[in-house]
Amino acid sequence: MMEKGFRELKNVDEALNIVMKIFGSKNFEKEELKLSEALDRVLAEDIISDIDIPPFDRAAVDGFALKSYETFSASPYNPAVFKIKGIIEAGVENEEIEVGEGECYAIYTGAPIPKGADAVVMVEDCDFNENFVKVKKSVAKFANISLKGEDIKKGEIIMRKGQLIRPWHIGVLSSIGRKKVIVYRLPIIGVISIGDELVDYEDKLTKGKIIDSTRPMIISLLREIGCNVIDKGIIRDDYNEILNSLSELSNNVDMIITIGGTSLGGKDLVPKVIKDIVFHGLAIKPGKPTGFGIFNEKPVLMLPGYPVSALVGFECIGMPLLSHWRGKKIERKKVRAILSRRVPITPGIRHFLRVSLKKIDNKLIAEPIALTGSGLLSSITKADGIIIIKENIEGLEEGEEVEVEIL
Amino acid sequence: MMEKGFRELKNVDEALNIVMKIFGSKNFEKEELKLSEALDRVLAEDIISDIDIPPFDRAAVDGFALKSYETFSASPYNPAVFKIKGIIEAGVENEEIEVGEGECYAIYTGAPIPKGADAVVMVEDCDFNENFVKVKKSVAKFANISLKGEDIKKGEIIMRKGQLIRPWHIGVLSSIGRKKVIVYRLPIIGVISIGDELVDYEDKLTKGKIIDSTRPMIISLLREIGCNVIDKGIIRDDYNEILNSLSELSNNVDMIITIGGTSLGGKDLVPKVIKDIVFHGLAIKPGKPTGFGIFNEKPVLMLPGYPVSALVGFECIGMPLLSHWRGKKIERKKVRAILSRRVPITPGIRHFLRVSLKKIDNKLIAEPIALTGSGLLSSITKADGIIIIKENIEGLEEGEEVEVEIL
Repeated sequence: MMEKGFRELKNVDEALNIVMKIFGSKNFEKEELKLSEALDRVLAEDIISDIDIPPFDRAAVDGFALKSYETFSASPYNPAVFKIKGIIEAGVENEEIEVGEGECYAIYTGAPIPKGADAVVMVEDCDFNENFVKVKKSVAKFANISLKGEDIKKGEIIMRKGQLIRPWHIGVLSSIGRKKVIVYRLPIIGVISIGDELVDYEDKLTKGKIIDSTRPMIISLLREIGCNVIDKGIIRDDYNEILNSLSELSNNVDMIITIGGTSLGGKDLVPKVIKDIVFHGLAIKPGKPTGFGIFNEKPVLMLPGYPVSALVGFECIGMPLLSHWRGKKIERKKVRAILSRRVPITPGIRHFLRVSLKKIDNKLIAEPIALTGSGLLSSITKADGIIIIKENIEGLEEGEEVEVEIL
Repeated sequence: MMEKGFRELKNVDEALNIVMKIFGSKNFEKEELKLSEALDRVLAEDIISDIDIPPFDRAAVDGFALKSYETFSASPYNPAVFKIKGIIEAGVENEEIEVGEGECYAIYTGAPIPKGADAVVMVEDCDFNENFVKVKKSVAKFANISLKGEDIKKGEIIMRKGQLIRPWHIGVLSSIGRKKVIVYRLPIIGVISIGDELVDYEDKLTKGKIIDSTRPMIISLLREIGCNVIDKGIIRDDYNEILNSLSELSNNVDMIITIGGTSLGGKDLVPKVIKDIVFHGLAIKPGKPTGFGIFNEKPVLMLPGYPVSALVGFECIGMPLLSHWRGKKIERKKVRAILSRRVPITPGIRHFLRVSLKKIDNKLIAEPIALTGSGLLSSITKADGIIIIKENIEGLEEGEEVEVEIL
């Protein structure tokens, strides 16, 4: 019938180490995407430019293109004078344009430098009319010119396999004319809730039942990380039903997350179905019944049914593995605050303490909410942040400075 | 023909203040979404629960439900003995179940507490066989019971208008059975590049032209913030073409972003078309030609054509306005590092310095890349972070400790 407690609680870091050792280096298949769909994906190829950027020497400012040596003695009192032969606009390549001695072309930012010229004098450093320019300052060779290949050289590796594609990478990839890129496909995660007492939030709540709020939350977390989710809904506390669902899911996903059925009551069948248990029982509070197993060669993260426990279990094991798979790190902003009261600690357990933050006398005060109640999801929506209290901490005292991760 | 420089460069904070004053409090229409689509959106209604959570008193642990006063003198040497009348499983409401004196029910986590019982003794604190339990510890009234309404009370406001919906909010909303929520619609941003010299990355690069890489980057930034984007592509340096495009866009978007055509060459027609200019020329480096205007009552952010300039201009003005509109703050991780060499500064200008980070002798060293070259997008993809040097800083010295925002 009933069993008593967990025989051994696994330390979080040890547990994660094992999980990462077994599943961290998983290889995902590659897929080719249009560049416009590649944002937030991970490159599965090195990117080599087949063009120079800029593709030609061009003006970096609005000004006058000329031979730099002719300005070498120029000053406000002794300006060098040049005849303006014409205007070169950006977007027009005219190979016949050439600058001779005593000549210049008015040139716009981005326009190609004419033959014979090796510098651009900024408009600001000149007096001019329609025909002549007085240059009041000497300019060095290549001044105000973006040289061909200065940004990116033809043949240069400009991005490496494994790079998470951010907006500026889209910029660089488009600048070299890439229309498609090869990326790793997204992880596919199967999610399933187990419990006779559960109804879906879309269904009618009947007597004695509760709404399964943990599954929608975990699915949302997975979507935020950028995983594809297969939602298998709720199944009953039935060995064969669980076995069938896990079997089916394991053929189609990279990882299974089960919710509920992991504490040690007689109906908690998930570990019995999975059999190959890596650990069951994590030294965290809340979230102790979190477990991890392997089913049909696929990793299975077993989360407790209570939402806050599930959230903490997911943060400890699921998040690090998945953000590694996704090639991106999800970081929370951290602030320092003063703890408003003493917090009792169980030694050897990592505590996740929800706190609200208040400014009093210009000091940031962290006030613990709900020390109990892993079922109390409202303790998270009411919280401003979380204090993670490591296993080696012996206790937190009133007035102690703590680090709060902002939700 | 050509004009000389910007008459006045606007201080970033002042510029942003003006923009926020005019457009910060814009009201977005509401829309109703299925809960499964509401992640990362902003609530446009207060959420009031019409049920208690938990909906009934339920067991918080696996154990035995009984009358607490009957355990008051229990100890390991003098256990209180109870007859087990049956098992109550989660998900089953049986109104006839009642606990009398000297009786108890075995009960699973989440199952409803039977009439007559007011506490649950944990399995760990008992010895038991199929018929009897020896309770070795006294329990207080309501011990190990999650009371009806303990998490959320019927009629309670559990979330306020303006709340960004995160995964745990999806959890709470589903727990009270919400199938739909009312949220603000997403901002719609129109993006357009202007320049005779530009070709789209999907088209063929011809002589004298360059690929428009800034627009794909800005569109990606907008998508990351979670805006809807209308991409109007590239148009020529032509007054009427610009006028027509802005007129059309202004009827369909909340904000227009123009790229290019904002420096002061003769072809820079965007400010001339917009006419109602709030500022043109920002005291930043790179990004100086950034401007802001109002066209057909819609805000227009004018970004320079060069990608790094555009990125910095967008960060200074576009990002704060849009993250305010989106109801979410986008924060970068910050680290402290030692600057590897002196950095020259123009007083009164906010500098955005791209740096690479290295660990040398266990110290984090920030090495500035590309102090010039606002066209050099590769200076961002090669960078690990950015140092923002405020206007009142007189210079950064070699060996100085600086704050680096990680890209």
